[in-house]
Amino acid sequence: MSAVADPIRLGVLGLGRAFTLMLPTFLGDARVQLVAAFDPHAEARAAFERTFHGNAADNEEAVCADPNVEWVYIATPHQLHARHVQLAARYGKHVLVEKPLALSLADADAMVDACARAGTRLIVGHSHSFNAPVLQARELIASGRYGAVRMVHALQYTDFLYRPRRPEELDTRQGGGVVFSQAAHQVDTVRLLAGGLATSVRALMGRWDPDRPTEGAYSALLQFAGGALASLSYNGYGFYDSDRQMDGVGEMGTPKAPDAHQATRARLTAASSEAAEVALKAARNFGGSAFAMPTPSTPTAAQHFGPVIVSCDHADLRLTPTGVEITSQAGAEFVPVVLPHVPRAEVIDELWGVAREGNSPLHSGEWSRATLEVCLAMLQSEAAGTDIALERQVAAPA
Amino acid sequence: MSAVADPIRLGVLGLGRAFTLMLPTFLGDARVQLVAAFDPHAEARAAFERTFHGNAADNEEAVCADPNVEWVYIATPHQLHARHVQLAARYGKHVLVEKPLALSLADADAMVDACARAGTRLIVGHSHSFNAPVLQARELIASGRYGAVRMVHALQYTDFLYRPRRPEELDTRQGGGVVFSQAAHQVDTVRLLAGGLATSVRALMGRWDPDRPTEGAYSALLQFAGGALASLSYNGYGFYDSDRQMDGVGEMGTPKAPDAHQATRARLTAASSEAAEVALKAARNFGGSAFAMPTPSTPTAAQHFGPVIVSCDHADLRLTPTGVEITSQAGAEFVPVVLPHVPRAEVIDELWGVAREGNSPLHSGEWSRATLEVCLAMLQSEAAGTDIALERQVAAPA
Repeated sequence: MSAVADPIRLGVLGLGRAFTLMLPTFLGDARVQLVAAFDPHAEARAAFERTFHGNAADNEEAVCADPNVEWVYIATPHQLHARHVQLAARYGKHVLVEKPLALSLADADAMVDACARAGTRLIVGHSHSFNAPVLQARELIASGRYGAVRMVHALQYTDFLYRPRRPEELDTRQGGGVVFSQAAHQVDTVRLLAGGLATSVRALMGRWDPDRPTEGAYSALLQFAGGALASLSYNGYGFYDSDRQMDGVGEMGTPKAPDAHQATRARLTAASSEAAEVALKAARNFGGSAFAMPTPSTPTAAQHFGPVIVSCDHADLRLTPTGVEITSQAGAEFVPVVLPHVPRAEVIDELWGVAREGNSPLHSGEWSRATLEVCLAMLQSEAAGTDIALERQVAAPA
Repeated sequence: MSAVADPIRLGVLGLGRAFTLMLPTFLGDARVQLVAAFDPHAEARAAFERTFHGNAADNEEAVCADPNVEWVYIATPHQLHARHVQLAARYGKHVLVEKPLALSLADADAMVDACARAGTRLIVGHSHSFNAPVLQARELIASGRYGAVRMVHALQYTDFLYRPRRPEELDTRQGGGVVFSQAAHQVDTVRLLAGGLATSVRALMGRWDPDRPTEGAYSALLQFAGGALASLSYNGYGFYDSDRQMDGVGEMGTPKAPDAHQATRARLTAASSEAAEVALKAARNFGGSAFAMPTPSTPTAAQHFGPVIVSCDHADLRLTPTGVEITSQAGAEFVPVVLPHVPRAEVIDELWGVAREGNSPLHSGEWSRATLEVCLAMLQSEAAGTDIALERQVAAPA
């Protein structure tokens, strides 16, 4: 992408895993410029200054107060999102905050209200519902050509639970486990495809490794206004890899080794203690000892979050890493997607639209609060043994 | 298979679709001998006499009363199973009855009781839980090598609703729709793999073609004693074909054309009336004008009912048409199955074991009543909007 006259000046809170996964985007998309950052780790701050020539601070407030910062990108641990969004809003900054928006609806309300009062914009992302094939399927559905959405099936089998974790990431009360971290992707995607207005959810959880005592798996049933139903299943226990159903392309849009899950588990087994696991995680993040700067490359596939099939009256739409396969009475037709020019450019597309073109965000605070409501209701449903009615849902924008 | 000294002498009630699908088995497995049959259609009776040189009657009682008949194979429409099982028992015959066992638990009770009182055996099948890879996965689980079953995921996308139907097959009250006909397979399979003792179910139904006003799709969550969860999804609306995830092998264990679903829908569109549709169905059945006698062939794959993944503590087991793929920390390992010598020989294996070797049936009346309980509870759950507790479940035999 050639030079951009007025790039969006971002300040970053948190240079950990979420930031590291956004790094190829920030390095490759000239529409954003990283001008400031906070992180508690000195080596991450040093790497930020070397890479982006911006100010790196050891406190959040410095970034939020920086007059050169236009939008604050909040990529701190889940449980800090609420405080950090409100801090940014207090300084009049627009906010891009990683999913999950928050850990409670009360926090989500406070965050949405803080931005509304401050007159600043709020976008929640990255999440995999930004991926080009999801947006493409949404457009195909919106065309009306295939009739109403009737049923959505979403599946994802990963090694999530055995990636190196800080202790809090294995504690559900602190936002750990697959519901906060992974259902946030899957529910957001399914809601976007089914129109957004979920009416109730029933979910069951899998928690079967006592050494990782949080949710590692779930299955859920969602009902939508208008009658559509959705089935969502996730298994993060690291054996079968559903990316095999996605042409061998991994979540990050790149080819995935057949033994990737086994390698993840083996690396973890080598970490002899909780502290060693935390160190292992830190080492892989931006500025860490095992971190390698991503080399710029044009995506050959979109990122994705596992197999998704949307059944409409007149066709089934199957998301793939390179487009949408439409099976109808006319047979199967593949509609290729225009791939992002850098990974996750779709996040910057939405950010740019809001920041520079006056668009309303698709992934607004209100939208993402509704996704959080579903995730929280999944946990409640498991605990209560019943359906949970949903009351904070919003429709997907046209 | 070479000659068998004492083949099991079967009398058949109903020479329609279910019988037609069992025909390759009966023709190819010398352990059974078809000695009598009932069907209301004269052309089916004539075909039976030509093919099997047995007595074909125009009433059920003649078959049940026939002293030469040892077991009665009941393949009449669902709603007649209860009456016909009780009739066979009244004449002291053992019974092999097609799934679903019945349409109500009261009928199932009456059937089980009738056989118990008569001192005759009752096996329910064929169903796809007889398939060799299912039985193989069951053995692998029973070995204890992979720990407890924690989660089962089962999926099936077919053209079920657009296969030619008699009107009652589109009327749920008469046993129509995918729950009675198709969940019977999927639930039975999942129960067998997860141990059998389901404790509750929550299900949502899809009914979105007003011209076929019965359930064409569902998603369900099942809980099991011991904590395992299962997610089952079925879509019979005839677009995406999940057999693509089964190496392109169809439910019947043979290669499936990529446009098979489209062909099914096109054939139905050509049937201009309800009567024409009934005629289309009859024509394809044994003795019908479009019926072709199956040519004997050795299976190159097992029959199956769509992708199933069983997650255990230490491995995920994925059923394929030729075996079970085990993904563990050691990587992926494929355990090929011994394929049946004729399609569905597994049904005759179980029948032979019970009839000639004194075994207890795996697919007993009590077992199948429990599967019926789940299917009925799925419909109740949809109607009531809640979980339905299950109270008639039995454990899978060791």
